[in-house]
Amino acid sequence: MNRREFQKNLAAIAASLAWPGKQSVAVAQSSASATGKEAPQYNIAMVIYPKMTALDLIGPQYAFASIMGANVSIIAKTLDPVVSDTGISINPDLTFQTCPHNLDVLFIPGGSYGTLATMTDSATVDFVRDRGSRATWVTSVCTGSLVLGAAGLLHGRKATSHWLVREKLLPLLGATPVNARVVQDGNRITGAGVSAGLDLGLTVVNLIMGAEYARAVQLMEEYAPQPPFHAGTPESAGSRITTMMVDMHKEFLTKATESALQAKSHLSS
Amino acid sequence: MNRREFQKNLAAIAASLAWPGKQSVAVAQSSASATGKEAPQYNIAMVIYPKMTALDLIGPQYAFASIMGANVSIIAKTLDPVVSDTGISINPDLTFQTCPHNLDVLFIPGGSYGTLATMTDSATVDFVRDRGSRATWVTSVCTGSLVLGAAGLLHGRKATSHWLVREKLLPLLGATPVNARVVQDGNRITGAGVSAGLDLGLTVVNLIMGAEYARAVQLMEEYAPQPPFHAGTPESAGSRITTMMVDMHKEFLTKATESALQAKSHLSS
Repeated sequence: MNRREFQKNLAAIAASLAWPGKQSVAVAQSSASATGKEAPQYNIAMVIYPKMTALDLIGPQYAFASIMGANVSIIAKTLDPVVSDTGISINPDLTFQTCPHNLDVLFIPGGSYGTLATMTDSATVDFVRDRGSRATWVTSVCTGSLVLGAAGLLHGRKATSHWLVREKLLPLLGATPVNARVVQDGNRITGAGVSAGLDLGLTVVNLIMGAEYARAVQLMEEYAPQPPFHAGTPESAGSRITTMMVDMHKEFLTKATESALQAKSHLSS
Repeated sequence: MNRREFQKNLAAIAASLAWPGKQSVAVAQSSASATGKEAPQYNIAMVIYPKMTALDLIGPQYAFASIMGANVSIIAKTLDPVVSDTGISINPDLTFQTCPHNLDVLFIPGGSYGTLATMTDSATVDFVRDRGSRATWVTSVCTGSLVLGAAGLLHGRKATSHWLVREKLLPLLGATPVNARVVQDGNRITGAGVSAGLDLGLTVVNLIMGAEYARAVQLMEEYAPQPPFHAGTPESAGSRITTMMVDMHKEFLTKATESALQAKSHLSS
C-alpha cells in the first residue's frame, strides 16, 4: 500500500466508523466516500524561495500531504531548483503563474536573509497577497509570517513568528505579536520558529479533517517529541545562550527592520 | 549574517567563553579556533532514495548543517532528482561514487515501499555497508534502520525504528528492538518514526559539538514542541486508531518481512 492508498483507506475507515469528533469537512468527505461520490479535493500551495528554511516547509508538508484529496504543490517564482539555507535543493512543482487561483491552504516558510529579500520582492508579495486574499487558510511558519505581513495579510491580526523577530517585527507590519506555538486569528494561522511547523501542520489537518484524522497523522509521524535538552525557548535556554544568539543576529535584526519598514511603505502607498 | 557566518560566530563565541559541558570534539574545535588553526571539518552524508520520507531527512539535516565545519551532502545513486513519498523533489549533491570515503556521520531516512526496495537494492546496501563500516557515527530515522540492518550494520545492536515495524522487523536483521525515541549502541544511533529525526539530530550535535552547542541549535530551531494532540505513540493514540493503522499496513508489513528475510539471506551468503 502506498501513501495514496493509505489516504483512501483512512477516509474509507473514517466513513465506515462514523468517528466522533470529526468536523464539517470530514463529515462531508466521509459522506461522499460512503455514498461513492467523489471526495473533496484540497488545493494546498506551499511557496518556496532561495534560502528559506527547509524544515519550516517539510514539517507541515508531511501533515498536509496526509490529507485525503490533498493536492499539495510546491510553488516558486520559476521552476528552477530552489536551494534552502541549509543547502537542500528542491524542485518546485508550479510557478506563481500556474498555481491554482483558489486555494484551501496557502503556506509560506521562513528563513533569514532570504526571507528579507522575499518581503521586498514585489512578484512574491503580490502573489502571496492575491492567493492569500481568497485562500480558506493562510498559514506560515517562523519568519514566513513576515512575508504574510509584508503582503498586508496580518494587519490587525494576532500572529507569531520566530522568537528572535516576533515582538519587534510583527508590529511594524500591523500585527499583534503573541508568544505561542501556533496562533490562529480567523483564517490566519502562524507558527513559531522552524520546528513549530509540525504543530502547525497537525493544527491545520485538525481544522480540515477533524481531530481523529489529525491524531492518526500524528501517530503515523510518531510525533511524541523528546528533545534531548530543554532549550527550545529563550526562557528555557537561559540568558547566556539567548543573549549570544541575539548578539549574533544584530545585523539581521537591523536589516529585518529596514525590510519591514520598506514593505510597510509599499502597503500604504 | 548568513548561516555560515552564524556557525563561525557561534564557534568563536564558544571558544572565547570556554563553555562548560562541552565535549572533547568541541574542546578541540574551540582550541583550534582560539589558536587560529583551521577548525575541523565534518563530512556528513545523508543518503536519499525514491519514496523516502522527506521529514525523516530534514529534521536531522537542520541540526547537522548547524555544525561548524560540517560539509553536509545529500547522496543518491545518481544525480537525478529524488521524489519523496509526499512528493518533494530533491536534487542530490553527490552519488555513491563521488561521496567521501571516510565519513563523520552516515545517515539514512525511512519511508514505506521505497525503503523496502532500498533494503534489497545491492548498490545502495553495498554503499551503506562500505561507508558505515568506517563512519564515526552511523545513524538513521524511522525505517531507515531497516536499511542499516539490511547492510548488516545493526547485527547484535540495540536499535529502534518506526513503531509499526520495530518489534517484528529489527530482530529479523539481527538487532534488538528498543522502544525509545533515540537509541545509541556504540556508534550506531537510530531514531524512532519520522519526527524523531529532530531528537536524533540534536543528539548527534551533542555528541560532536557538546551540550551547549546543541542547546543553541535547539533554541534557533525553536524546538519546544507542543503537539496539538497526545497521539504520537500507539499507547497515547489509543487502540482504535492504532489498530486501524496496523490494519491499513498489513500488506506493507508482509512485504517488509519478505524484504528483511531476503536482505538477511544476502548477508549470510
